[in-house]
Amino acid sequence: MTAEQNLVRIAVDAMGGDNAPAEIVKGAVEFARTGSAQIMLVGDEDALNSELTGLDTDGLPVAVVPSEGVIREGEPPALALRQKPKASIVVSTAMVKREQADASVTMGSTGAAMAAAAVVLGMTKGVERPALGGPILGTAPRTVILDVGTNVDCRPQQLVSFAVIGDVFARHFWNIEKPRVALLSVGAEVGKGNRQVRETTELLEKSGLNFVGNVEAHELAKGAVDVAVCDGFVGNIVMKLTEGIGDAMDARLRDLLDGALPPEEVNRVTAGFHELTNVVEMTGGGPLFGVNGVTVVGHGSAKATAVYRAIGVAKIAVETGYVPQINRDLEAVHAKLDA
Amino acid sequence: MTAEQNLVRIAVDAMGGDNAPAEIVKGAVEFARTGSAQIMLVGDEDALNSELTGLDTDGLPVAVVPSEGVIREGEPPALALRQKPKASIVVSTAMVKREQADASVTMGSTGAAMAAAAVVLGMTKGVERPALGGPILGTAPRTVILDVGTNVDCRPQQLVSFAVIGDVFARHFWNIEKPRVALLSVGAEVGKGNRQVRETTELLEKSGLNFVGNVEAHELAKGAVDVAVCDGFVGNIVMKLTEGIGDAMDARLRDLLDGALPPEEVNRVTAGFHELTNVVEMTGGGPLFGVNGVTVVGHGSAKATAVYRAIGVAKIAVETGYVPQINRDLEAVHAKLDA
Repeated sequence: MTAEQNLVRIAVDAMGGDNAPAEIVKGAVEFARTGSAQIMLVGDEDALNSELTGLDTDGLPVAVVPSEGVIREGEPPALALRQKPKASIVVSTAMVKREQADASVTMGSTGAAMAAAAVVLGMTKGVERPALGGPILGTAPRTVILDVGTNVDCRPQQLVSFAVIGDVFARHFWNIEKPRVALLSVGAEVGKGNRQVRETTELLEKSGLNFVGNVEAHELAKGAVDVAVCDGFVGNIVMKLTEGIGDAMDARLRDLLDGALPPEEVNRVTAGFHELTNVVEMTGGGPLFGVNGVTVVGHGSAKATAVYRAIGVAKIAVETGYVPQINRDLEAVHAKLDA
Repeated sequence: MTAEQNLVRIAVDAMGGDNAPAEIVKGAVEFARTGSAQIMLVGDEDALNSELTGLDTDGLPVAVVPSEGVIREGEPPALALRQKPKASIVVSTAMVKREQADASVTMGSTGAAMAAAAVVLGMTKGVERPALGGPILGTAPRTVILDVGTNVDCRPQQLVSFAVIGDVFARHFWNIEKPRVALLSVGAEVGKGNRQVRETTELLEKSGLNFVGNVEAHELAKGAVDVAVCDGFVGNIVMKLTEGIGDAMDARLRDLLDGALPPEEVNRVTAGFHELTNVVEMTGGGPLFGVNGVTVVGHGSAKATAVYRAIGVAKIAVETGYVPQINRDLEAVHAKLDA
């Protein structure tokens, strides 16, 4: 047990996601086999033990933590939290709060994960509600874009907070020393755009970040900057449009290649293509931003491999101390702007 | 000359665009060969006559109208209009105003075309500045999206005007009887989105249009609605992101196919793919919306075929009477909302 005591402890919501619990348990156990994290599977005890029976987990750092109920995609998060206080997402998030785990990971409802994180872990000072983001474009796998979530009406100060969070993300996850931070806008000239962009530009110029001005969407797709900041309305449209174009292209590509290549070659080409518009599947998931703890949220359709990867993201987040760094940087930047 | 008097008369800005005047003249002359429009090439007289010399234009309904100077992409439009009052875009737009032409077509600076149209033709009542739009997604070639231009901060009333314009566009260009009109937003539920969407939803529900609520970006990419309304900030990002993803995918596809298919087959597949993200090249161009006359603006990189198609768009716009229809519908809808 000595070794385990130094392992990063990950609470995995084993009930969340389209393929729960089977694929969640499978991916988590695979991660445990690396010996680099202690896995705590949170969910219905009988169901989880039954899944584990089929896998060889002898001696692995895997434990089961009981919970009651699941919050499904589409349930109103705030109401669901009150109705199901022992749901798997609540219990796994609470383990982080109580320092029984270093991070939590879920493939379940993003809304529920955000609500649980906001209520249980609390918000980082300077952030009004949890933000979502990450490298959402496969054509720009080293560009973090945020917010892509629920912050649809943003004041300039919020966008500055997103810039700070993205800056820390790029430094901690990708070791970029001075990430180029830009505002997603409709013209390349600094300050060109809507009122929100113009007002945020003034603040970012004083922020001390490596603010490089605006990035236009076609340059964004090429990975021209390290951090692209936008409100959640624009960011969510960017994310979903990319998925939609990718799906349509996938279908068209199969049509065009049909008969011209053997089926296995068609699969190779379309798979290489698919990742360009479905980067979340490649990374497994991304951390919620702006909450006082590490919660990684993946895609509802995740299978074992994506779960494995999401746990890896959580581990890096813990090991690099990115949450305390965000807190320090947010405080410093907002103090500078208020001065 | 009797036949010509009944032909639609198109003033073509022969100096605008990266490939002017050669490709513009070539495309316009090709259109004249159909015998379905009278073409007036506006530009430097010597240059145009020299281009025409190389083409067999005997007996074709093609004339040259002299102008002085060109407004280039990137010049501040308002200033350029004052400095170059006889520039080709000004002269061709003025011909529409003076009823010497039924429509104008340009591959030059979009900003200059918009400024010339606003100043020379004047704005439609209920529209503050010219809007841009059209079927900008190749994966949704029968969905008109607007604004994708310079209306970056919009009041709800402006978005209603865009909805009316898009509705007329879908009826006149595509013969869709009751176009499904939607707001581009971040959730499928009616009214879900930012403040702008919520406020505009209230108005559209009373507008008498076939308002179907929100469309999310992945559904937009599949052509789920006929008209998608957004402000120019969001629309411009949608348009440029699509181009950027397309370019990146094009490059990736060539890599994936290299060696697996003969070069001519690679070209066939990538060409079939390219049009999914570059629909403007396929349509040639789209009309400026909200001005009192028909001006079709194409891509600066247009070659003869795209010019030919843009002239075709202008011809349909004239023949279907879409500008007077927009004026009537805008008046009716805003009267209904004010009541």
